[in-house]
Amino acid sequence: MNHFSYDQLYRFSKDIFIAMGCPESDAETATKTLLSADMRGVDSHGVARLSGYVRLWDKQRINAKPDIKVIHETPSTATIDGDAGLGLVVAPFAMQVAIEKAKNAGTGWVAVKNSNHYGIAGYHAMKALDHDMIGMSMTNASPLVSPTFSKERMLGTNPIAVAIPANEQPPFVGDFATTPAANGKLEVLMRKGENAPLGWIQDQGGQSTDNAHGIKEGGSWLPLGGDREHGSHKGFILGSIVDIFSAVLSGANYGPWAPPFVTFLEPSKDPVGEGLGHFFGAMRVDAFRPAEEFKSHMDNWITRFRESDRTDANQPVVIPGDPERTYEKERSENGIPLLEPVEKDLRALGERFGVKF
Amino acid sequence: MNHFSYDQLYRFSKDIFIAMGCPESDAETATKTLLSADMRGVDSHGVARLSGYVRLWDKQRINAKPDIKVIHETPSTATIDGDAGLGLVVAPFAMQVAIEKAKNAGTGWVAVKNSNHYGIAGYHAMKALDHDMIGMSMTNASPLVSPTFSKERMLGTNPIAVAIPANEQPPFVGDFATTPAANGKLEVLMRKGENAPLGWIQDQGGQSTDNAHGIKEGGSWLPLGGDREHGSHKGFILGSIVDIFSAVLSGANYGPWAPPFVTFLEPSKDPVGEGLGHFFGAMRVDAFRPAEEFKSHMDNWITRFRESDRTDANQPVVIPGDPERTYEKERSENGIPLLEPVEKDLRALGERFGVKF
Repeated sequence: MNHFSYDQLYRFSKDIFIAMGCPESDAETATKTLLSADMRGVDSHGVARLSGYVRLWDKQRINAKPDIKVIHETPSTATIDGDAGLGLVVAPFAMQVAIEKAKNAGTGWVAVKNSNHYGIAGYHAMKALDHDMIGMSMTNASPLVSPTFSKERMLGTNPIAVAIPANEQPPFVGDFATTPAANGKLEVLMRKGENAPLGWIQDQGGQSTDNAHGIKEGGSWLPLGGDREHGSHKGFILGSIVDIFSAVLSGANYGPWAPPFVTFLEPSKDPVGEGLGHFFGAMRVDAFRPAEEFKSHMDNWITRFRESDRTDANQPVVIPGDPERTYEKERSENGIPLLEPVEKDLRALGERFGVKF
Repeated sequence: MNHFSYDQLYRFSKDIFIAMGCPESDAETATKTLLSADMRGVDSHGVARLSGYVRLWDKQRINAKPDIKVIHETPSTATIDGDAGLGLVVAPFAMQVAIEKAKNAGTGWVAVKNSNHYGIAGYHAMKALDHDMIGMSMTNASPLVSPTFSKERMLGTNPIAVAIPANEQPPFVGDFATTPAANGKLEVLMRKGENAPLGWIQDQGGQSTDNAHGIKEGGSWLPLGGDREHGSHKGFILGSIVDIFSAVLSGANYGPWAPPFVTFLEPSKDPVGEGLGHFFGAMRVDAFRPAEEFKSHMDNWITRFRESDRTDANQPVVIPGDPERTYEKERSENGIPLLEPVEKDLRALGERFGVKF
């Protein structure tokens, strides 16, 4: 596995986006969003997906020169039409609107339609931190998850991210798919030829399976919780809330109509809205109590939880955001490792567009 | 098991609250909040808890005549001091503030400190529905849940409720503890002398156990997901977000400092805030898109999900809110069944305060 510097991947990705026809500043925004995944260790959502975006552009599902617009607003809300732009560009625009709303109204909430895959949810939520705000971000996604008691693919792995500032401690950054694990984990198991843990997915008939290829073969993800006895109806509720906030509030496609990113599914021929949907939130901490007071209690919260009694002396209690910070530190020193198929894929992309890898 | 009419339990509960010293209108508010749990089938949170509230009042942890006040606000937010009042009274006050804020600013978000147990989360979220708003409600609670990789009791079962209006279909009402099951389920198993499913709780040493008494014996709830491999870190993130929004934002006690409702735990001697915390939200649907448009898409969402392919032909797919509506219909016709120990408990309470059961 070869390692590549952030700068090298940055230049390459930016040039590919420019070759697609993106304006330079959009290409920079998209690249920063995309590579934040690689830096934070979410390899499935980073540069490995660059050719996926190009594939959607080839199919004319991505508009490289979108006119992103606020189409409806109140003091604390906005609805945005992404004009089929890259989610990697639409989402930062929308999160900035949420932050501006919060400056004036205390909080800002933005629903987005007519977008597509937006990278990692956490990156957008974290934008709020610099402003002493709590940031939130969610999106619907390719329909691969069944409701409890169903075997049909109705929802995406619909992630939720919440970023909360502290003072001396690093921020609390939760970023999770509303399924037992993220799709990327399953992709890793497929590549390695290993089985999936029982409780992640079911086959086409609705039987629990450890076949990591189960979803490609017509099966579906189970919601977080796995089965009814262990609370899968709660995972279903969470995924549904993400779907409704992101897509029904905004006017995007919801549920099984969500336009897929994965290659083995086609978009619905009878859409109920426009594109994919996202939802963003920003809450000024000092809209509730003085920011310094809040942040010093967050320091106390984080410290106390980090020090809670361990089950296994060698396994520390993990504060949300810790693992990604470790990756970020390590990769800014040693570069980003790319699997051979990903490297090959990028070289082919470079050749096609005449961009040096 | 005897059945009791709503009116009978209403008169009784109201008189008990009045005997505690509550003003009549507060006693009515508290009773409506409390009995909404019995009507919706959440027996653990209804009239069965009346003597629990009296117990906290005996210990001077509940103020029957609170001066509930907004202590900080912006156009879309407020922080409320519950003055140690009944959560059953403080929460409806706070939710109303959220709704008023939303009328003007598009959304309203209210953090509450110095409160205590507020009944079922869903009741408060549903208050938004009459205004064509999405309602949200969450609260921290008795510390009984361990973070992933920890065996210490650090969080409550911290519920989240989200209520979303539809047009012809009944509303979507999700209301769930951020653990594999709610505490009430465990209480039922203890009463029946049955074991708990593995994956719900761990013993004092951090070993998975099916002993339904495990928590009373020093063990703890696992977060939703159960173990790390099945996403328990996501349940931990959810419970943490509820704790931080409810208690760190408001100035209440958070994490292991949350004042317990359960009899086998005592409040911390070194509090980090005041009382228990809640968090409420209200979002005007038409702050994002026309309400009729949104609600007709919600009808479509609900219908499509209800009709998704079943795993078992005899087990329908459940839309969040369906089971509680079935209870509500059945109990308004046939009354509310009370277990013998609960009935006995209420009779004793009646004798103590000279209130006829």
